[in-house]
Amino acid sequence: MATTLIKGGTVVSATGQTSADVLIDGEKIVGVLAPGSVLLGTDLAASADTVIDATGKYVIPGGIDAHTHFELPFGGTEASDSFESGTRAAAWGGTTTVVDFAVQVAGTPVPDGLAAWHEKAAGNCAIDYGFHQIIGGVDEASLAFMPKLLDEGISSYKMFMAYPGVFYSDDGQILRAMQKAAELGLLTMMHAENGPAIDVLAAQLAEAGKTTPYYHGIARAWQMEEEATHRAIMLSHLTNAPLYVVHVSAKQAVEQLAWARDRGQNVFGETCPQYLYLSLEEQLGATSKEWGDFEGAKWVCSTPLRSREEGHQDHMWQALRTNDLQMVSTDHCPFCMKGQKELGKGDFRKIPNGIGSVEHRMDLMYQGVVTGQLTLERWVELTSTTPARMFGMYGQKGVIAPGADGDVVVYDPQGHTTISAETHHMNMDHSAWEGYEIDGHVDTVLSRGKVIVDGGQYLGSKGDGRFLKRGLSQYLV
Amino acid sequence: MATTLIKGGTVVSATGQTSADVLIDGEKIVGVLAPGSVLLGTDLAASADTVIDATGKYVIPGGIDAHTHFELPFGGTEASDSFESGTRAAAWGGTTTVVDFAVQVAGTPVPDGLAAWHEKAAGNCAIDYGFHQIIGGVDEASLAFMPKLLDEGISSYKMFMAYPGVFYSDDGQILRAMQKAAELGLLTMMHAENGPAIDVLAAQLAEAGKTTPYYHGIARAWQMEEEATHRAIMLSHLTNAPLYVVHVSAKQAVEQLAWARDRGQNVFGETCPQYLYLSLEEQLGATSKEWGDFEGAKWVCSTPLRSREEGHQDHMWQALRTNDLQMVSTDHCPFCMKGQKELGKGDFRKIPNGIGSVEHRMDLMYQGVVTGQLTLERWVELTSTTPARMFGMYGQKGVIAPGADGDVVVYDPQGHTTISAETHHMNMDHSAWEGYEIDGHVDTVLSRGKVIVDGGQYLGSKGDGRFLKRGLSQYLV
Amino acid sequence: MATTLIKGGTVVSATGQTSADVLIDGEKIVGVLAPGSVLLGTDLAASADTVIDATGKYVIPGGIDAHTHFELPFGGTEASDSFESGTRAAAWGGTTTVVDFAVQVAGTPVPDGLAAWHEKAAGNCAIDYGFHQIIGGVDEASLAFMPKLLDEGISSYKMFMAYPGVFYSDDGQILRAMQKAAELGLLTMMHAENGPAIDVLAAQLAEAGKTTPYYHGIARAWQMEEEATHRAIMLSHLTNAPLYVVHVSAKQAVEQLAWARDRGQNVFGETCPQYLYLSLEEQLGATSKEWGDFEGAKWVCSTPLRSREEGHQDHMWQALRTNDLQMVSTDHCPFCMKGQKELGKGDFRKIPNGIGSVEHRMDLMYQGVVTGQLTLERWVELTSTTPARMFGMYGQKGVIAPGADGDVVVYDPQGHTTISAETHHMNMDHSAWEGYEIDGHVDTVLSRGKVIVDGGQYLGSKGDGRFLKRGLSQYLV
Amino acid sequence: MATTLIKGGTVVSATGQTSADVLIDGEKIVGVLAPGSVLLGTDLAASADTVIDATGKYVIPGGIDAHTHFELPFGGTEASDSFESGTRAAAWGGTTTVVDFAVQVAGTPVPDGLAAWHEKAAGNCAIDYGFHQIIGGVDEASLAFMPKLLDEGISSYKMFMAYPGVFYSDDGQILRAMQKAAELGLLTMMHAENGPAIDVLAAQLAEAGKTTPYYHGIARAWQMEEEATHRAIMLSHLTNAPLYVVHVSAKQAVEQLAWARDRGQNVFGETCPQYLYLSLEEQLGATSKEWGDFEGAKWVCSTPLRSREEGHQDHMWQALRTNDLQMVSTDHCPFCMKGQKELGKGDFRKIPNGIGSVEHRMDLMYQGVVTGQLTLERWVELTSTTPARMFGMYGQKGVIAPGADGDVVVYDPQGHTTISAETHHMNMDHSAWEGYEIDGHVDTVLSRGKVIVDGGQYLGSKGDGRFLKRGLSQYLV
Repeated sequence: MATTLIKGGTVVSATGQTSADVLIDGEKIVGVLAPGSVLLGTDLAASADTVIDATGKYVIPGGIDAHTHFELPFGGTEASDSFESGTRAAAWGGTTTVVDFAVQVAGTPVPDGLAAWHEKAAGNCAIDYGFHQIIGGVDEASLAFMPKLLDEGISSYKMFMAYPGVFYSDDGQILRAMQKAAELGLLTMMHAENGPAIDVLAAQLAEAGKTTPYYHGIARAWQMEEEATHRAIMLSHLTNAPLYVVHVSAKQAVEQLAWARDRGQNVFGETCPQYLYLSLEEQLGATSKEWGDFEGAKWVCSTPLRSREEGHQDHMWQALRTNDLQMVSTDHCPFCMKGQKELGKGDFRKIPNGIGSVEHRMDLMYQGVVTGQLTLERWVELTSTTPARMFGMYGQKGVIAPGADGDVVVYDPQGHTTISAETHHMNMDHSAWEGYEIDGHVDTVLSRGKVIVDGGQYLGSKGDGRFLKRGLSQYLV
Repeated sequence: MATTLIKGGTVVSATGQTSADVLIDGEKIVGVLAPGSVLLGTDLAASADTVIDATGKYVIPGGIDAHTHFELPFGGTEASDSFESGTRAAAWGGTTTVVDFAVQVAGTPVPDGLAAWHEKAAGNCAIDYGFHQIIGGVDEASLAFMPKLLDEGISSYKMFMAYPGVFYSDDGQILRAMQKAAELGLLTMMHAENGPAIDVLAAQLAEAGKTTPYYHGIARAWQMEEEATHRAIMLSHLTNAPLYVVHVSAKQAVEQLAWARDRGQNVFGETCPQYLYLSLEEQLGATSKEWGDFEGAKWVCSTPLRSREEGHQDHMWQALRTNDLQMVSTDHCPFCMKGQKELGKGDFRKIPNGIGSVEHRMDLMYQGVVTGQLTLERWVELTSTTPARMFGMYGQKGVIAPGADGDVVVYDPQGHTTISAETHHMNMDHSAWEGYEIDGHVDTVLSRGKVIVDGGQYLGSKGDGRFLKRGLSQYLV
Repeated sequence: MATTLIKGGTVVSATGQTSADVLIDGEKIVGVLAPGSVLLGTDLAASADTVIDATGKYVIPGGIDAHTHFELPFGGTEASDSFESGTRAAAWGGTTTVVDFAVQVAGTPVPDGLAAWHEKAAGNCAIDYGFHQIIGGVDEASLAFMPKLLDEGISSYKMFMAYPGVFYSDDGQILRAMQKAAELGLLTMMHAENGPAIDVLAAQLAEAGKTTPYYHGIARAWQMEEEATHRAIMLSHLTNAPLYVVHVSAKQAVEQLAWARDRGQNVFGETCPQYLYLSLEEQLGATSKEWGDFEGAKWVCSTPLRSREEGHQDHMWQALRTNDLQMVSTDHCPFCMKGQKELGKGDFRKIPNGIGSVEHRMDLMYQGVVTGQLTLERWVELTSTTPARMFGMYGQKGVIAPGADGDVVVYDPQGHTTISAETHHMNMDHSAWEGYEIDGHVDTVLSRGKVIVDGGQYLGSKGDGRFLKRGLSQYLV
Repeated sequence: MATTLIKGGTVVSATGQTSADVLIDGEKIVGVLAPGSVLLGTDLAASADTVIDATGKYVIPGGIDAHTHFELPFGGTEASDSFESGTRAAAWGGTTTVVDFAVQVAGTPVPDGLAAWHEKAAGNCAIDYGFHQIIGGVDEASLAFMPKLLDEGISSYKMFMAYPGVFYSDDGQILRAMQKAAELGLLTMMHAENGPAIDVLAAQLAEAGKTTPYYHGIARAWQMEEEATHRAIMLSHLTNAPLYVVHVSAKQAVEQLAWARDRGQNVFGETCPQYLYLSLEEQLGATSKEWGDFEGAKWVCSTPLRSREEGHQDHMWQALRTNDLQMVSTDHCPFCMKGQKELGKGDFRKIPNGIGSVEHRMDLMYQGVVTGQLTLERWVELTSTTPARMFGMYGQKGVIAPGADGDVVVYDPQGHTTISAETHHMNMDHSAWEGYEIDGHVDTVLSRGKVIVDGGQYLGSKGDGRFLKRGLSQYLV
């Protein structure tokens, strides 16, 4: 099998930086070596099939995006990235693992939903992928299938406190699922927004003629995110089930997480780049020649963008530093403006919810290092090491160490990246990040030892990625 | 130079576990390799001068005890461990780095105090050592010397809110030192107890004839630790100086730290094994044939042991899990019962303050892994990786990675350790931990590549250890 | 009209004590006079028709119990006190005003429910009575009727987060009602327990054969009271609707109230005597010859009794002192053991929920004065003055001042009261308070100037009490 | 003796409003009567010597200003109001009781300080006055005198955490005094600012040439008020001594008070009109033809004015509503610009600290009713009823009820008041409140039954006021 040596770089881990060479043999990392790679007189560099020069660059474990929605049916349409286009875009951006959400719809068998997801993904992915299981209908059958999820390599499942009539679980259902999860060691992921209340607010706004994309954010008030977060925390407290809250955007929700964590609960939270960079005020002001004041539809996602004046964005950055939030995922859920987002012209409730960022997460978060919001180590921890630990992949993923998969990114702090729909690789007719400038660049990406991106070329193939069976979360005490 | 291969073990880092071999060349780790150590067809194992079989054992970065007091003059006597005896005992227990406190006394030049400490330590240590600088008298001269501390490889200094007339700094002095520290990047360490109030309480107890060791803990009420912790936090907030609170023992003090950290302050805290295991109630009940109710003097330390009924011990373990406390040091400050502790017979105020644990920290904390209080990873993080990051040694210390010093411990989870004054290596006529049983054992200890403890033998020499110049804390955003 | 002078007593108000005589002319208080009642040379005492000697006794405004359920249909039976028996018992205990809950059932018109309540009460009451309106079905019709409630003299209404399928409102319904209430100034009262989750727990216990009364309390876990309390607070925050949480029993729920109040929300809470005196542990241990371990059914109420070991009772007393709770009502909802409570033998879910205390509230709270939990002033404030202010009756009720109704109680701190089913006046075959001893006694009770209890005699008549139209809460800023 | 009837008004108490006439006989209130004052057929109105028509006006208990400094030596000068001028000004403004601070200086006997204060006040006051005792030097003699304070009618004493070298007590001293106070029931009043730290900041600013009045507020950072407040709370917790924090101005200090109160501590706080209305930003901008940028000296007080941008003022109003603050006093400490404030030209540290408001407190707080910040009832509670209860005067002062002193104010909500140095009655050459407009007016003021202000005339005489012996605080549980 082929061997690769990445030499001369600075290996960055969650705890620090080391000048070291990384040796990959076949799909696995086999050695982390002193620079020069001469061990006991043997010049390993000379023996490697391929040598990648990482001098002056960072060598980091490939990014793990633990929250994507490829080919997700939503609001009468479907997320515009297939597993093929989405995972390829991820690879371009230095992400070498995604965890997507298999969907069970209420009244249908969970294994059917899971099987459908396997079908969508198998043979199509550029990088390794795992699944969380959405349980859209907690009932006897769903509960009975939960123990089998672990056998399927799925150690986490998700419920929704929002979207009544679609994915919504009531508190009795949540309680039952959490009891089972606590017993099994499954990690409960939660979309924490009070859907029944939000839907009333949204209907009132729509009836009042307040129908532009901006009102999506007004309807989804922070109080209803804070509330649901607290509720999930208390159900977790009651059942002793570890809890992971997805796409946290309100600072008050973070305060609830901090409160629970301070008293020792196994409660975790992720945020997404949109909640760090974008704001409700900008959405209100968004306009374009083509779309007029519907332009803001590109930023319609749930939880919604929050007010900058209220300080949510600053608080999210702070929470990433204080570890009150542990991870950054994308909640990648792309929809084109044409034919998709535009379904909601005249009624924000019909705009498919989602932003596409799977390609840009590593860059956007690196920019946080440039601006002093994060350390280099925390960048790696938030985007790779903690996702691996949180979702039971550490050792194989999330770290540069012998035995780990050869998922490695060479990142150039002297490089530059401009984000634009014209150059991105996601299947979207616009970019939520149009014009963002990044003071760094993903130079080379290896997936299980194979160079799939290098020198501005995509060198991988459809089907490179394999399904990843995950174990229990390694982040729980 | 000699080469050593530690093979077959499980390398434990702060983030996870890897089956890997560790190759050391001279003083440095040069490779972390896939088990078997055959890289690109080259059998490195065959070439190593020494091979240590770690099969079934943990391979961890050597322990770092960032809080010791060797040869400290205190209360008319001197801590009973010299740098020689103390560092050797540390080595026996799997600690390969200590950071001791050089002492400046009010009215004397800081560099003189520092020079005196260098003199005590130089040529006598079994393992590498660094210094924090105690500033006992914050004045113009002391402040003027602070910028030079960094040149001396000393990136942290300590002040006392306790011990009026000895080490005490008033709030104006603390403010001035913190301002300077914030400017320089020095880390401010704080003994956070309200000395002026405690001394009144202690005098009142003594006058009332309440003179046994137990009353030491009554006088040093938790309210006065909580208070001083809050005060230090606010002075830190005002000056923007990072703060590290030593030997935290009261749960309410932890709550103050958590409060400050949640709002983004660079505030840190350490606790010590005595605050995790021992209690005020046990001190009250302590008695022996030789010492009667003065037996409790062996546990007189400051901050004092806390009430178990009030739940402090459980809260300290929890805080180690929640990262509201970041480190475990020993505050090793040994005094013999004979001739030292007994100075306080009839007046607890005259009992020299301190407990000796430098030899047992790694074991006592590992027992927390056995009992489910901590994960293996957190054990390594609390005892080695975070101390290295906190005090500017990471890369050289605190991690098993190429370029790091060959400070490695092979820890056997199948081994067993019984703690007793009869077998320990500290210069103490008793043990605060007499009869403690540990379900693990420090088998082999390497310091900069040299095996200094193995097979129950001490193989090192006086003077093996070198002074360690430390850089700025790597733990601050 | 008849005049009455209550002379020589100590008039106790919410803010202090005064030696004063109280002059009543007809139904109204007309003067509060210096002792002796000689004003400007006129001896008023000589002119009064009736003189009551209150020397050595407390003269207080009649008690107001703002939470009773007379003749309430519940669980297939009906609360055992009629308006006649219940209000007469109240009078015996020094309560001269009750506010009962008119019930609207989902799907039926609110005015019908209200009319039914008027029918039950009219002409039957011993003392004045008002109504809150339960809205069991928030829908267009209910919302449309809310503005008319004020015209009906009903300034407060209640919703339930518990009892799905019976009184339960979902969060969307609560939101809509609160919006309307905020607009109108109506006070929203909330039964704050997470019913959907509790019902799952209860069903699981029942299925597991855990069917004794004790498990009622286990099913209704404090986490689900805390949670619902927080949720109600956030819906209140979102809508700006003042909130009053009924029968608070969990200390963590109080913490939520305190949190909301500290940040300026108009949020209030009541507790009841059972949460101050009784505990889950005692319920577990309750047994009798007649009922065996079903004896605890007498204490089945919702929210349930809480664990004494967890400290809820002490915290309730504290919260009454700190004003984190503002009132003490009874939630009087009596059921006999025979034929009623016993419906739940073999399944705690079928035990009618409720305790009868309307007769004993003033005594039980006075005992808190005796034991040092409350001041005399706070006793009056919690049981009369604040209820009057909270529910828009102040001036007419809740104070001894000219213009107020002559609702006055002469309370003897030298008297004694033993509570027993054999002597109480409620229509119950047992007492939740059997054997409680009170170091005080209700000597004389006047309702609108008429002496209705005196010298151990009931002197009133059915129909003495009138419906009381209430105004807006006077407690809101 | 003369009798007075105040008829037709609305009597406002801390809990509500009543249409009632108030009858005063000699110095005491003897009756609160139904409007019309015809009792049992006797027309009392006809018999009164004097009848005051309060129709359309509020009749309230005379204001109590519990924090004044008349004739206080400070910073090389003396507060410019004598007891004569100061109490007369108070009367003009509807305040009928003041509690001034007798001063003990370290090293001198407490009784000497007290005697000196009696000498200043005796025979000079327009209204009744009491004393708190400042203990500037906590030592054996001071502590020994504390039990005698109660005999002297002084139930509260004050210490300073600020002003080292002047009034400052260290934490050991505070501890000892609090222990004694807890034993005696004395209320401990605290100036809570960290003086040693503030003095360093002030010196640094002065050295840096930042000498204008604005820097007074910069030096006295809110962190140092918050800190001292917390410290005082913890010393109070340790000793079980009730605590009253004077002149609270920082919102974070209020949060500390709220925290302590929520957990049941007897901790109280007052604020002053300047912290509700004035701000640091306005002080920075203050300028005048005469004084230039020294104009802001008129607002130099300690604690200092706070930043409006940081939201302190809004939070103070909120805290008055939530009862996290219980009282409004003035901290009246007047200095003229000429000859006094100007001592600090070129060095803000030499500006005598203080603002004069004793005449305007009732008006300024009434304006809070007008603007919707407070209810009428809360106005009375904050300015009269709670001060009376807090400082052991209730019954005699702070309430309109039989037996109380005839200290009554008739306040006209249709009147108007413009504040100006040209019209005020304080001995000051400027007003901190110049140009403030009040939508109300103090029409008539009675002190112990004597009309001392009426129709824009001062009708009292020097010496009308008597020394008031106070009892223990009635506000403590």
